[in-house]
Amino acid sequence: MKQIAFLILIIFVKMNSSQISDTDIPQTIIALEKEALEKWNQGDPSGYLDLSADDVTYFDPSIEQRLDGLDNLRKYYEPIKGQINISEYEMINPKVTATKEMAVLTFNLHSYKADTVYKWNCTEVYRLESDGQWKIVQTHWSNYIKP
Amino acid sequence: MKQIAFLILIIFVKMNSSQISDTDIPQTIIALEKEALEKWNQGDPSGYLDLSADDVTYFDPSIEQRLDGLDNLRKYYEPIKGQINISEYEMINPKVTATKEMAVLTFNLHSYKADTVYKWNCTEVYRLESDGQWKIVQTHWSNYIKP
Repeated sequence: MKQIAFLILIIFVKMNSSQISDTDIPQTIIALEKEALEKWNQGDPSGYLDLSADDVTYFDPSIEQRLDGLDNLRKYYEPIKGQINISEYEMINPKVTATKEMAVLTFNLHSYKADTVYKWNCTEVYRLESDGQWKIVQTHWSNYIKP
Repeated sequence: MKQIAFLILIIFVKMNSSQISDTDIPQTIIALEKEALEKWNQGDPSGYLDLSADDVTYFDPSIEQRLDGLDNLRKYYEPIKGQINISEYEMINPKVTATKEMAVLTFNLHSYKADTVYKWNCTEVYRLESDGQWKIVQTHWSNYIKP
């Protein structure tokens, strides 16, 4: 009987265990994003590629249709390698809206290169994979266009 | 002993019950989006406002910073009421990436007004609320900009 009670306890602990670290999700996600972004700013897309899931979907203002899948993202980034050189950036007001298995990070980004500032809107949707790693399943970059 | 076995069975059924309708998530989400979009195309933002959560975050190309919260979205949409008149639209290649409690819908949108076609990238992140309704927690509209 004691064994049964213990089994039930284990089941309930298992049901609730994935909630234990919920409060850490925003800071985990923001740290992952910053790490990838800082590599990107030095011309290295590998941070974002390593962080993206196989079924990632991707938008930016220079492609006419959504890009689907990590292989296509890798091909798209290939000619960009070494071409980006951002000296400074501001991740403005990052916000994470999270459930246990998926989280969306949004922020405005100001990227500085010489005297120019590039202003971006960014959405990154992260999914918690079975190995416990958060991976990007959707990236959306866009620009503010002065009316 | 039979009662204990039955109790354990109930617990496992409860653990997995939220997965039963997982296959319906994409079609549910796409139907919700189309309903709101069709109202929008007739100048009525109420579909999107009803579908958005209190903590929604919002990007479009004409605002310089992310807009936060349903109240602010309501104020932003107020002067747009009755100003939009899209005769036809194509939701191109909608894709839903879902977990049990959150799902991201992406698509390209072509909106037709007289002889003009407006091309959009769209990301909508939906969250399953405690009342069983899916609500939008993040909207990101952007335009394809010819290089």
